[in-house]
Amino acid sequence: MSVNDNSVNIENRGYHHGDLRAALIAEGLRLLAERTVESISLREIARNVGVSATSVYRHFPDKDALMAALAREGLDRLAQAQYAAADAAGGGKPGFAATGRAYVRFALANPALFRLIFASPLTPCHGQELEAFQFLRQNAAAAGGSTLDDPATETRVLFAWSLVHGLAMLMLDRQIPADDALIDRVVGMEPGC
Amino acid sequence: MSVNDNSVNIENRGYHHGDLRAALIAEGLRLLAERTVESISLREIARNVGVSATSVYRHFPDKDALMAALAREGLDRLAQAQYAAADAAGGGKPGFAATGRAYVRFALANPALFRLIFASPLTPCHGQELEAFQFLRQNAAAAGGSTLDDPATETRVLFAWSLVHGLAMLMLDRQIPADDALIDRVVGMEPGC
Repeated sequence: MSVNDNSVNIENRGYHHGDLRAALIAEGLRLLAERTVESISLREIARNVGVSATSVYRHFPDKDALMAALAREGLDRLAQAQYAAADAAGGGKPGFAATGRAYVRFALANPALFRLIFASPLTPCHGQELEAFQFLRQNAAAAGGSTLDDPATETRVLFAWSLVHGLAMLMLDRQIPADDALIDRVVGMEPGC
Repeated sequence: MSVNDNSVNIENRGYHHGDLRAALIAEGLRLLAERTVESISLREIARNVGVSATSVYRHFPDKDALMAALAREGLDRLAQAQYAAADAAGGGKPGFAATGRAYVRFALANPALFRLIFASPLTPCHGQELEAFQFLRQNAAAAGGSTLDDPATETRVLFAWSLVHGLAMLMLDRQIPADDALIDRVVGMEPGC
């Protein structure tokens, strides 16, 4: 986080507007890596970043607003993890499977953030409108040899998403062991892989 | 709920011990059908059933204890819904698919109860030890033509469970439409169906 003595806002302790917002999000993500959503307060984040609660309210009127921003950031990171995995696997069927494994591994590495992404009503949008969903649709079409507007492609994407989402949730909720080799075995059974 | 004037416990307003416990669970399930876990208190349940909070504490020392009992009851009902669906479909592959569809439909019909079943730390046991899981394992073996102790049978069960659990969660979290025909399409893609 950068401190700039020329800032026009003394109360922000030198944070430029965008810098403070980024610093609050970064601190929220840091806390979320160790704790649950319930245990985090805007007041604590303000204290840790070194600004007043009033300064925080300029960016996030309440905790829900900050959590929505964290969920959005988490969604971006989840998508990036999937893009990177698909790239590394060289696309096609291996890329589709790698995307699925990356999804489950992201959930296990970021439990609170993953839960936050899908906690309604923070994400009232339908997942199918997300950029990452479009990416999956393209991969599913490529892996299954179908076209983008083929209804079978849509079903295949929902199938693959359900599979990895369920596996992630059951592992997070300790219904089945969070075993790395098990992720490979289950995702490897996917008919498109 | 039965009222018995010969009860030894006046404070329980005539409830036999087992009757009161059942009445408290029934009232908890009734409230859970309309509300979230967070909004329900032991005090309210006591008031609705017509007994003192002290009487409730004899059965459930705190809210977590009651919620654990509700989760256990929910798990039984979820299992019953799956058994009934498999029976109606005549077992085998159609039975396996019917079990999966019943799982998702139970979640949509009982959102708060379904979430409660899987909310850690209320169910610290691993799902694989559950009776319903053993039932699924038998169905998966029958549907896939494999033996019970074949590792492929275990992977197939985890695959099928992940698929329907993920579909249920994504529909509950409004990431994808809770569309009945969509349940059939996605579950119907399952390789064992």
